[in-house]
Amino acid sequence: MTGGTLHILGMGPGDPELVTVKAARVINTAPVVAFFAKRGRPGHARTIASPHMRRGVEELRFEYPYTTEINVDDPRYELGIHAFYESSAAVLAGRLDAGQDVALLCEGDPFFYGSAMYLYDRLSPAYQTSVVPGVTAMSGCWTQAGLPMTHGDDVLTVLPGTLEAGALATRLSQSDAAVIMKVGRNLPKIRAALDGAGLTGRAVYVERGTMAGTRTIPFSDLPDGPAPYFSLVLVPGRQRPR
Amino acid sequence: MTGGTLHILGMGPGDPELVTVKAARVINTAPVVAFFAKRGRPGHARTIASPHMRRGVEELRFEYPYTTEINVDDPRYELGIHAFYESSAAVLAGRLDAGQDVALLCEGDPFFYGSAMYLYDRLSPAYQTSVVPGVTAMSGCWTQAGLPMTHGDDVLTVLPGTLEAGALATRLSQSDAAVIMKVGRNLPKIRAALDGAGLTGRAVYVERGTMAGTRTIPFSDLPDGPAPYFSLVLVPGRQRPR
Repeated sequence: MTGGTLHILGMGPGDPELVTVKAARVINTAPVVAFFAKRGRPGHARTIASPHMRRGVEELRFEYPYTTEINVDDPRYELGIHAFYESSAAVLAGRLDAGQDVALLCEGDPFFYGSAMYLYDRLSPAYQTSVVPGVTAMSGCWTQAGLPMTHGDDVLTVLPGTLEAGALATRLSQSDAAVIMKVGRNLPKIRAALDGAGLTGRAVYVERGTMAGTRTIPFSDLPDGPAPYFSLVLVPGRQRPR
Repeated sequence: MTGGTLHILGMGPGDPELVTVKAARVINTAPVVAFFAKRGRPGHARTIASPHMRRGVEELRFEYPYTTEINVDDPRYELGIHAFYESSAAVLAGRLDAGQDVALLCEGDPFFYGSAMYLYDRLSPAYQTSVVPGVTAMSGCWTQAGLPMTHGDDVLTVLPGTLEAGALATRLSQSDAAVIMKVGRNLPKIRAALDGAGLTGRAVYVERGTMAGTRTIPFSDLPDGPAPYFSLVLVPGRQRPR
């Protein structure tokens, strides 16, 4: 392999001080910093990285083709997002071919539901690639909420709120601890699943963990209605003796 | 609340550069650094923190009463470990009462299977407490192995290898991605569970992720026999289209 190195950097849950020492060092030395962003937004990973970036560093912004106009179940979504990752990878390949190192920022931990893995898939076979793990959003949220989640032989399940309510309830009842992601418009369904599993009383809702404007609410006190993107439901474990 | 502040700091998976900027800052300014260690060992969290510690900082070493002499199922284990956490908490309380800030080091992420949570339980109701999340051992391992674990609507399950083989196989077959911890002496059982769930071909064994001497082995190539403490089995997800 010749050319530059692609550094994929986990930016952690939101607080810029929760970036690792390694990621902060690489951001500060890379000649090019790349990141994904939604239309009209500064980019979450870019915002976290901001205090660690050198003034005047070159930035590559990859703007997602959709925000919420097209549903993820629509075949056009898949086509468009595929083309988006292809063209983003081509831009990075051009820089790497020219011998430039590139730092690609990724919120949370890159290999845990991170978009950067689609560029890792495309570029790591051909280019020197280094991935730096990060603190996950869920760790940020349970820490913010003061909720030690798992101990001893606890089973933890990470569930997308997009699952059907019955499937959600079944998985919840088989876990000691659970994290429900993708809350968004799925709040009524998540409530039904928690009720079905008898877990509503133990569940906690956390919004914008480790970021400005964060809030933690017992799930039973949470009104229905759409939740923002940066929100999770936590069901802490530790119900069995160690 | 008066007195000093207890800082519980996640030290990440092993590489000292994977400590967060915040944890590195707090270690470097705290007058007292406390940590758990096994008898005859330097303490894993202490080893990770070492490059970030000020020369001459006071250290409090809390030595676990057992390593493997007493089984965790033995009632004496529970009694001994309870007394150990009580006495460790009392030592920290003494320092906090005297107005000293204390940094308590914890490998990985403190609220994710971390021993420090037992001191958090005892001390946070009475003392100013701040917890800093860390990169988990599992994130360190899947990054080291080059295995993007989850995307889209994948369900991830974190399972202790201590579960009975049938239960392990059932949980594995209901997950898109899985992490099996506490491999140790449970390797033959884990192998049976992976075989039962038809997942042996996808599973990867990772030892000492992000540390010196790390190794990654396809599970099917791994010989039976006890695995070291710092080992995990990963079953990457991403089998369903996004």
